[in-house]
Amino acid sequence: MRLATLRLDDTATVAVRVDSDTAATVIDGYADLSDLLRDPDWSTVAEQAAGGAVDLTTADYAPVIPRPGKIICVGLNYATHIREMGRELPEYPTLFAKFAEALTGPYDDVVVPSYAAGQLDWEAELAVVIGKQAYQVAESDADAYIAGYSVINDYTMRDYQYRTLQWDQGKTFEKTSGFGPFLSTDYTLGTRIETRLEGEVMQSATTDDLVFTPAKLVDYISHIVTLQPGDVIITGTTGGVGHARKPARYIRNGETVEVSIEGLGTVRNTTIVK
Amino acid sequence: MRLATLRLDDTATVAVRVDSDTAATVIDGYADLSDLLRDPDWSTVAEQAAGGAVDLTTADYAPVIPRPGKIICVGLNYATHIREMGRELPEYPTLFAKFAEALTGPYDDVVVPSYAAGQLDWEAELAVVIGKQAYQVAESDADAYIAGYSVINDYTMRDYQYRTLQWDQGKTFEKTSGFGPFLSTDYTLGTRIETRLEGEVMQSATTDDLVFTPAKLVDYISHIVTLQPGDVIITGTTGGVGHARKPARYIRNGETVEVSIEGLGTVRNTTIVK
Repeated sequence: MRLATLRLDDTATVAVRVDSDTAATVIDGYADLSDLLRDPDWSTVAEQAAGGAVDLTTADYAPVIPRPGKIICVGLNYATHIREMGRELPEYPTLFAKFAEALTGPYDDVVVPSYAAGQLDWEAELAVVIGKQAYQVAESDADAYIAGYSVINDYTMRDYQYRTLQWDQGKTFEKTSGFGPFLSTDYTLGTRIETRLEGEVMQSATTDDLVFTPAKLVDYISHIVTLQPGDVIITGTTGGVGHARKPARYIRNGETVEVSIEGLGTVRNTTIVK
Repeated sequence: MRLATLRLDDTATVAVRVDSDTAATVIDGYADLSDLLRDPDWSTVAEQAAGGAVDLTTADYAPVIPRPGKIICVGLNYATHIREMGRELPEYPTLFAKFAEALTGPYDDVVVPSYAAGQLDWEAELAVVIGKQAYQVAESDADAYIAGYSVINDYTMRDYQYRTLQWDQGKTFEKTSGFGPFLSTDYTLGTRIETRLEGEVMQSATTDDLVFTPAKLVDYISHIVTLQPGDVIITGTTGGVGHARKPARYIRNGETVEVSIEGLGTVRNTTIVK
């Protein structure tokens, strides 16, 4: 099953079940997928929804989960990339945070104030969305706590990221991280994850290269803090980011970045500096 | 004016205006201060509240802001401590995150699972609570966006903090950071901030030693991401944490830590390992 959050106008959104590439059905009574996932029966509610029909060809997609209580980001998680950098595989996941205000729709323009536009970079990531409150959950049980998967560009201001030892401030700029288009409840690790800048492939890997799988991350994080329905874990990126290229290659005004995961879809955002 | 969130039972809370050391008045219609601060008229509403009388001598205090949308933590912010460590004053604030689930009431026991109890530490901090949506706000205008101030123990699992280069996972353990007891709308920097472990002073400084003042932090952070009413900035700690002592001194099972700021009050939490 695929779900999405669509904008009706500047303030109102609606949760929908996606029935085909062009048609969806409104899930009546829920403002968005953040709202829906708080209902313990969200899966049945979504399956049985019979609200109005929506034409997806003209739809305006909001961030698929617009208001996560928390967004936990993982660094250094693709084994091949870690090894090619000459590093050992990590014993523990590196965790940092992104705030909900940093999210934007999967096809929105990313508008960046000029003071923050010095080193704009992409990071293709698999997003894991929590579907059920999880505290001290074992890896073997973790799948039952995952609602589904989506695509995110962990858009990064590299200069801010490296102003201090802690990365968070470079990871949470207002409305920069394209997130969506769908929440897919069925997904198996191992498909292609890719970033294209103006059509040119910049990152390419497969999601079965993750050192810490979604199930391992739910185990690890839920032994620190309760994961709530609608919380999001973004699972790290692979080689090929702009900052690590020789010479470095940052996103310029007017350029479009696409992040795709086979089976989950594509976020496509054009950066506008002003 | 002083405000607080009190527990009525296991699930229900109420927002109150504190009228004296022993008496408060219910602010009818608001579940807690997170709820109240979303009302643009929160200050007038609180001043004019005339709900039921509450006896504070038997009150059960919840985290003063129980559900912040975000909690932004600042590292390395007390000038005297930075200089005594032989470091230069930083050009930019070091920012990381704590999640709302890490908060606990100002007098609650902190219950820590044994797997996480290896290196429990204290950090006395001044908390700044946002009262009005703030984006790209200048330092000179920042005071108008601050609802008030409170006390927090930025309780830290040092082993988790240093498992990786990013600190967040050591800063956000479930229900560990005592926060409160009050939101004080009137406060001027320069009073004593202190930690006592089992009555012995461990940290002592004054809040006018901050490199990045609350107003500077609102300016800096709001040029990255929108601050929402009820968001919390915790402003960093001074010398004297357990991890930096020779030998290191961590919180043991059954020990009580008090964090006080003169004019704002005290949080007092006993750690129970189990």
